[in-house]
Amino acid sequence: MEQEHQRQFDKYLEDLKQKLMRMAALAETMIDNTIAELVQRDESLAAKVPDYEEELNRLQLEIDEAALNLLATQQPVAKDLRFILAATKINSDLERIGDLAINITENVRILAAHPPLKPLIDIPRMADLVRKMVRDCLDAFVREDVLLAQSVIDGDDLVDDLKNQILRELLTYMISDPKAIERALALILISRHLERVGDHATNIAEDVIYMIQGRDVRHPRTPKERPADLGL
Amino acid sequence: MEQEHQRQFDKYLEDLKQKLMRMAALAETMIDNTIAELVQRDESLAAKVPDYEEELNRLQLEIDEAALNLLATQQPVAKDLRFILAATKINSDLERIGDLAINITENVRILAAHPPLKPLIDIPRMADLVRKMVRDCLDAFVREDVLLAQSVIDGDDLVDDLKNQILRELLTYMISDPKAIERALALILISRHLERVGDHATNIAEDVIYMIQGRDVRHPRTPKERPADLGL
Repeated sequence: MEQEHQRQFDKYLEDLKQKLMRMAALAETMIDNTIAELVQRDESLAAKVPDYEEELNRLQLEIDEAALNLLATQQPVAKDLRFILAATKINSDLERIGDLAINITENVRILAAHPPLKPLIDIPRMADLVRKMVRDCLDAFVREDVLLAQSVIDGDDLVDDLKNQILRELLTYMISDPKAIERALALILISRHLERVGDHATNIAEDVIYMIQGRDVRHPRTPKERPADLGL
Repeated sequence: MEQEHQRQFDKYLEDLKQKLMRMAALAETMIDNTIAELVQRDESLAAKVPDYEEELNRLQLEIDEAALNLLATQQPVAKDLRFILAATKINSDLERIGDLAINITENVRILAAHPPLKPLIDIPRMADLVRKMVRDCLDAFVREDVLLAQSVIDGDDLVDDLKNQILRELLTYMISDPKAIERALALILISRHLERVGDHATNIAEDVIYMIQGRDVRHPRTPKERPADLGL
């Protein structure tokens, strides 16, 4: 009976995992589609993004409900408990990544009404990076892979560098041609939204490490406690 | 004994509440100080912001740890369970508001190196609005006040309007004078950070309503389910 109970509980956790993986896949696709529309200037490419957002929202509610039920009826402890709490946090981050994809689409539509400002290289690169971060932090969650989670956290510096580089380049466009200002600003805002996607992936990666180790890496109190110094 | 146990449990919940209130007060002060520095051009005004952020981070860890312990040892159900889950989510939102205050400070420092672009009216107004949203959503949490939480959600539209107004005005500055571009951009980014503070307050308000009612207002499935239609 105890064994049967454990099997049932594991099934619930597995279901939570599957739903979070689906959310991550949706979030990734939304970013991919909006950036494809931006680069190829073809509005049909992001046509499904609002549908994906709806599914993302629905999954968020389902996961929160399932987590609440599991906590109330199964009274999990230790790592199972941390897993369920992590699921409710990851959940919120993935939903907000979906919101950011919607924000990006709005700026992409502003750009679609004007001739292209410049060939886009850094923004698609930034989008690829943050999509990989989203994929990796969820893989780290499912496989309980601390190293992979840590690589997501470390990768965020590169995203910040790209964001700053994009800002500097677009500032020169703005200063040399007032007609470029609105488009350059839209591109800057897109890069900021992508940066935030990276921030959410970083938050997820931190939650994953906490879940696995029961150790908080979010705000190391001394340099000694930094994960890098622990050989991760 | 049962009564003693309940009293002890209530004390734990009360402690969680106090810590969240302290976090909200810190987040509010951080925004207040950074915007005061921006308006009065006096770097000493935001000097304590990094200390406040450190305290915010510490409180976040303490609350997550306390929540985990409560879930593991007290096995709460129904509203107590929703309260603890809400605390862990509100917690994350408040910590990120602190991060946003730090981001604002960075842009304020850019502006401090240049003569003022224009008298600032809308940004301080926007800051007042979002600070009030932060205060109100936490008051709603502590007093279990659905109406107050709903007013926070409704107030977010005003913040978005202000953000758009600020963008339009600063665009005209940028277009008429290339020397204004960097400063105008810094102000636009500050307004975006403030908007995100409002978003976090809205997220908290939604969590508060869910906690009180066990009903999710985050993504109403049909217009009929919208809180406004329920007379809130």
